[in-house]
Order: sequence, then C-alpha cells, then structure tokens
Amino acid sequence: MTTKASNITAPTQFIAVKGERYAYRRFGAGPGLPLLCLQHFTGTLDNWDPAVTDPLAAGREVILFESAGVGRSSGVVPETIAGMTAHALAFLDGLGLKVCDVLGFSLGGMVAQQMVQDRPSVFRRMILVGTAPRGGEDIMHLEKPVLAKHLADPTLKGYKVLQKIFFAPTQTSQAAGAAFIERLMQRKQDREPVSGPEIAQAQMAAFREWDRFSAERFADLRNIKQPTLVVNGVHDEMIAVRNSYWLSENLPNAVLLTYPDSGHGSLFQFPESFTRQATAFLASGASSAAY
Amino acid sequence: MTTKASNITAPTQFIAVKGERYAYRRFGAGPGLPLLCLQHFTGTLDNWDPAVTDPLAAGREVILFESAGVGRSSGVVPETIAGMTAHALAFLDGLGLKVCDVLGFSLGGMVAQQMVQDRPSVFRRMILVGTAPRGGEDIMHLEKPVLAKHLADPTLKGYKVLQKIFFAPTQTSQAAGAAFIERLMQRKQDREPVSGPEIAQAQMAAFREWDRFSAERFADLRNIKQPTLVVNGVHDEMIAVRNSYWLSENLPNAVLLTYPDSGHGSLFQFPESFTRQATAFLASGASSAAY
Repeated sequence: MTTKASNITAPTQFIAVKGERYAYRRFGAGPGLPLLCLQHFTGTLDNWDPAVTDPLAAGREVILFESAGVGRSSGVVPETIAGMTAHALAFLDGLGLKVCDVLGFSLGGMVAQQMVQDRPSVFRRMILVGTAPRGGEDIMHLEKPVLAKHLADPTLKGYKVLQKIFFAPTQTSQAAGAAFIERLMQRKQDREPVSGPEIAQAQMAAFREWDRFSAERFADLRNIKQPTLVVNGVHDEMIAVRNSYWLSENLPNAVLLTYPDSGHGSLFQFPESFTRQATAFLASGASSAAY
Repeated sequence: MTTKASNITAPTQFIAVKGERYAYRRFGAGPGLPLLCLQHFTGTLDNWDPAVTDPLAAGREVILFESAGVGRSSGVVPETIAGMTAHALAFLDGLGLKVCDVLGFSLGGMVAQQMVQDRPSVFRRMILVGTAPRGGEDIMHLEKPVLAKHLADPTLKGYKVLQKIFFAPTQTSQAAGAAFIERLMQRKQDREPVSGPEIAQAQMAAFREWDRFSAERFADLRNIKQPTLVVNGVHDEMIAVRNSYWLSENLPNAVLLTYPDSGHGSLFQFPESFTRQATAFLASGASSAAY
C-alpha cells in the first residue's frame, strides 16, 4: 500500500553532515530530477503548502530543506546568504545528490542564486519565486507601515499574520490566504518548532547584506546559465516585484511570470497555475527557458 | 479533403461595412471562441507568422484583420488609436461577431485595449504582446540610434529590417529572426501590398497621441476587467518592456510572461512556447487570468 506523497504526511528526516544535523522531508517520485526547495524568512518545513509541493511530487522527488538553526536543524542561522548556501550545499553532499533542480522562495531564492553560482554543475533548472537579486531594493523592510501594522497587530495569532503579509489586501487574495493557512494546518503530527526572534534577526541581517553590491550592479547574474523561471505577485510588499524584473532582465535565460491580485505568496494563491507552469518548465529539456 | 488551416494558404477575404472594404483572413476551427488578431506598425495580413497563427487555429477560428488604409483595405489610416478602434469594431459588426477573444501585437495591442474599453461585452479574454498602455514610455521611437541604424541601412532589403528590429542582437535571437522571415515568405500567392511611408506616418502619429494621458496615469486600465495575458521580450527596443510591467501592474486581472534573449517579436521567436501558453490561457474559463 502506498500513501500519496504529501507534505501533510511525509516524515521529517535527519541527516548528519560536517557536525550539523539537518531536518528535511523527501517525498514523491517520477521521471523528473529531484527538486530542492529552499524556504522563506522564518519558514520551516511546515510552511511548504501541500497544494504546491504535492503536485510537484507527482513527477519527481521533492526535497524540502531546513537550514541550520531553523526548526529541528542544528546549528546557528548564518547572517549571510553565503553562509546559508554553504549549509544547503553540505546537505546536498550529505544526500549524495549530484544533479537536481531547485526552487527557491523569497530568502530561499537568494540561496538558490548563490548555490547555482557556487556549484553550477549541480543544478539543471531553477525556479525563483518572490525573490531578489543581490543589489535589489525594497527587500523585507518589515518596518514599512503596510507590513508593520500587521506584524504589530495583537489580534493576528500564529499563521494569521502570514495571510495578511503574503497576500494582497483584496477580498479574493485574502480568501486565498485563508485557504493557504488551512492547508498549512493539515499536517497534524511531526511538526517543526515555530521560528523565534533570533532566527528572524539573523535572517534579516542576511537580507541587509544581500542589499549590497560591488562593481556593476546585477553583473553577477550574467554568470547564471541555468534556464530560470522567475515568478512573483505584482503587489508584493515584502520583496517588490521590480526585483523580479531585474532578475528576468539580467539573467541570460529567464522567463518571468507574474500573477495579478497577489503579493509575496503568489505561488500559494495560485497553486494550480503555479504547479502547472512549474511542471511544464521543469519538464522541458530545451536550452532556452521558454517553455 | 481538407487543407490545414494556415495563414500560408488562407484566402484573403473582403467585407464591406459602412462605406469601407476591409481585407481579412479567417481560418481554423475548434471549441474556442474566435480570436481576433490585430497587427503591428505597418504590418499587413502577411506579417502574421504561420507558426503563431496556425497552432492557434487548431482550436478556434483565427481572424486576421487589416485596418483601414493598410494592405488591400480601403480608406485612410487613422492618426489615433481611437480611429483604428472604430474600424475594428465596425469590422466585427460586419462579421456579426458578438463575442470573441482578442490578440493585439504592438500597435494592435493598443487597439485591443481601446476596443475592450469601448465594447467590454464583446471580449472575453485578451492577449497583449509587445505593447503599451496609454501614457507609456519609449514607444516606437524609430529615431533611437539602436533602431535608426537598421532602418537607414541600405543593405537591409524587405523583411530583413524586421529581423534586426524585432529580434535581439544575439546570434540566437537573430537566427530565430531569420527563421521568422522565411516563414513569412512561405505564402506565395494572394499577398498584400507592402505598407508605404504614408501608412507609417499616420500610425506614428497614433503612437504619439497614445503617449499622452490625462488625470491619473494608467487609471483607465482599471476599467478593463477581461482576464489578460501580457507578453513581451525583455530586450524590446521598439516598445520597452516596462510598458508591459505597467500593464500587468495596473490591469486588475493580468498575467505577465516575459521571454529572455528577445525583443519586440518575442512571440515569433518562441512560437511553440507562445502558442502553448496562449492556448492554455484561452482555454481557461476561470475568472482569474492565472492559468
């Protein structure tokens, strides 16, 4: 008897590499390469929406990675994207994974960009959602009134704040946000501990370091040869959509897809569309990112 | 015996409406609504790439429209988008078409935007490629050196100039441009006369009028409720890609898709991808543009 591969039920696993113990989940099967999924600011394995992971797991192994210092992974949260990248690469080494695709969301999209630059031979195709290039702008400024008002609202408990800040302030987007939160709560057992302020502070330091660039802005993106799919909601207040424009204009081989009526969590607002598009993109063996 | 529906072989037809005689081609069949296709600056019916029209015609009627004063259509080229819109609406009235989808490329995309505002009930879904909203910027400034050098080059005969200005200056994009030109030449008979300078001048006046806006910039886009797919090449020198960003950010219900390594003619550079995406978009009956 087999159970449907799902982030609702996939057991959390652990792997020891170079003195750390990383938590992860690995589920699904199919003809595709394994898809490494890199998570957002303060997100744990439990923040991956099953409506996104599970359709992708129908065609490949999905590997959700918990970076150092987050959830039940050991260690300290690095204060740079480079530090997080080193952990993610150590994790791949631990798994013995020689080639894969990668999906990075928000903070995870920055780690994905750094990974493909540090180890280009490992990665075939890349999906970057709600993220920014090094040297981007309007990246995770939680002090912005439009975000701060929700973060400071004592009536918003637990995931309710995610519904506010990941989705646009329209009825339709907020309803999609409520459905997203319900899906995150479908996993009842073997959940990760929720991230505290120390994790947030270290990751925020990494965002601020990622703001800085030297020499020619965005020139580093030209070295990324992987076909890339860039995705964003047009009303993203957490990482402004113009960062996705810069990614698609400066990566040599990137298709951009933006969604209406949506913010940072566009992939969770339109999981059917997103997984259909991502599946088509990942299924392509073309040299061009166009799919 | 049936012949494959194709812009290579579809006969040019004529319809008389309100004192004008419009040239058009109508071919294809299938479950989809008819797709009205509106053409670019100086383009005739012969400028529709069969690699784009024919796959679309496999699922619906494709209707290519020649506006007044272009090709073998009678009349005078209007110097405003509103004037061209009136001709296109008269044409639809002449056909007795009560509901359809619309694909507007470049100049045609501006006419499409005006049509859906003037007659919202006729149009179900809209595809806008390489175009701009009223009040956009960097729209068809052929005096820009990057364009002018090709337009003034005496060695570029006929469609060869299109290859230069519709495609990016890379080997891959130029090769795609050469293939596009070959496809345009596959139609051997019943071709339209090539547009002369009077047509160009009148259409250019319409671009300059479209630059202007009153009151709040892009506010008119909020009245367009049709699910819309916006498409552009990221290196479009004829109508800068930021115009597509403005469209997708200000239309209430638009998905944006941009292509790498491509310019104004991105749909002709990636016809397999474009027609696959357009077909999926048009096949959707969802209220959201996400597909």
